[in-house]
Amino acid sequence: MTGHGHIPEATVARLPLYLRGLDELLVNGAGTVSSDELADVAGVNAAKVRKDLSHLGTYGTRGVGYDAEYLRFEISRALGVANTWPVVVCGFGNLGRALANHTGFTDRGFPILAAIDTDPEKVGTTLDGVPIRAPRELVRVVKDNHIAIGVIATPPEAAQDAVDRLIEAGIRSIMSFAPTVLVVPDDVEIRSVDLATELQILGFHLTGSDSPGSG
Amino acid sequence: MTGHGHIPEATVARLPLYLRGLDELLVNGAGTVSSDELADVAGVNAAKVRKDLSHLGTYGTRGVGYDAEYLRFEISRALGVANTWPVVVCGFGNLGRALANHTGFTDRGFPILAAIDTDPEKVGTTLDGVPIRAPRELVRVVKDNHIAIGVIATPPEAAQDAVDRLIEAGIRSIMSFAPTVLVVPDDVEIRSVDLATELQILGFHLTGSDSPGSG
Repeated sequence: MTGHGHIPEATVARLPLYLRGLDELLVNGAGTVSSDELADVAGVNAAKVRKDLSHLGTYGTRGVGYDAEYLRFEISRALGVANTWPVVVCGFGNLGRALANHTGFTDRGFPILAAIDTDPEKVGTTLDGVPIRAPRELVRVVKDNHIAIGVIATPPEAAQDAVDRLIEAGIRSIMSFAPTVLVVPDDVEIRSVDLATELQILGFHLTGSDSPGSG
Repeated sequence: MTGHGHIPEATVARLPLYLRGLDELLVNGAGTVSSDELADVAGVNAAKVRKDLSHLGTYGTRGVGYDAEYLRFEISRALGVANTWPVVVCGFGNLGRALANHTGFTDRGFPILAAIDTDPEKVGTTLDGVPIRAPRELVRVVKDNHIAIGVIATPPEAAQDAVDRLIEAGIRSIMSFAPTVLVVPDDVEIRSVDLATELQILGFHLTGSDSPGSG
């Protein structure tokens, strides 16, 4: 049994939201935080917050809430934020370079140590502090840098090939930004980021505000 | 009362996940889809799927599931996917350009009609099909293009200024990619996309797999 075996998947998926919410509340000087406040920033209800946090063994004080700093520590520990997981980015166009310049990756333990690109003009150079290598060099790149996670930032039509190469090189954790369906074996975890999801939620609310009879 | 007043926020936030999941299942040729399958792709439990979809007035058939195409239509309609919400992107560096090249925006009704950038070399040009204008032109850009949503793709230190300018120009729906806390009035909806969230979930599972005593 692993140390995290008892935390439900749905709870795990919400922990980064709580962490981000806590960061916002701490910036505003909060010493304690209620489940209502956390529910608000994470977009779930307060009962779910309390249940999620109880899986970490963390219980707030009735009428007071949670100690914000301590809760941040507990969630970070559960998420393994203290660990470092080196990342290789496949596809170093605009998106790949945007990720390389994103401080949130390195800050949270996901340094981008290498990129793979097919452009012969880029291969062998260093862009945004990231050395760029050819696809055929991937096995060595993964080994030399102890890469734990592969990120797909290729055009959609090249994404499956990039995924296949990552898996061949021994990578078992993949995050994809490609707006396409990718096939992986059961022992590989792939998580897709859909950049348009939040736009769709904004669009939903705009639809409501424009509908007949509103406001 | 608006047409969507009865759908809980947490359900709205999951509708894009179901839509994306349905697209994957439809690609694989599914005619019907069970709440278990949808739960799987969306990362929630099946009871929640059934409850969420019941808010749309959609109920599956016991032992059969939902008609995949019809469900897709119902969710799209609820999300207002048939509508078009023109977008302005603030900050046209690597991230802004990656968004402009992302087919998922236009496909789902969020065409990027203009970008704002402070770089005098970019202002007045068209990059990736998007005309780039100076910050002082924002009010006109919003008016001329009927912009509904502003996207923040600036460096973190420029994000609050960009948000303030969008609000001054009349924008009330903002999506931010900046890893920083942004302040907006109560009548403005701002949704932040944290590119590192999914990495943290991958990191959580890696932590579990490496912990002493595991497989």
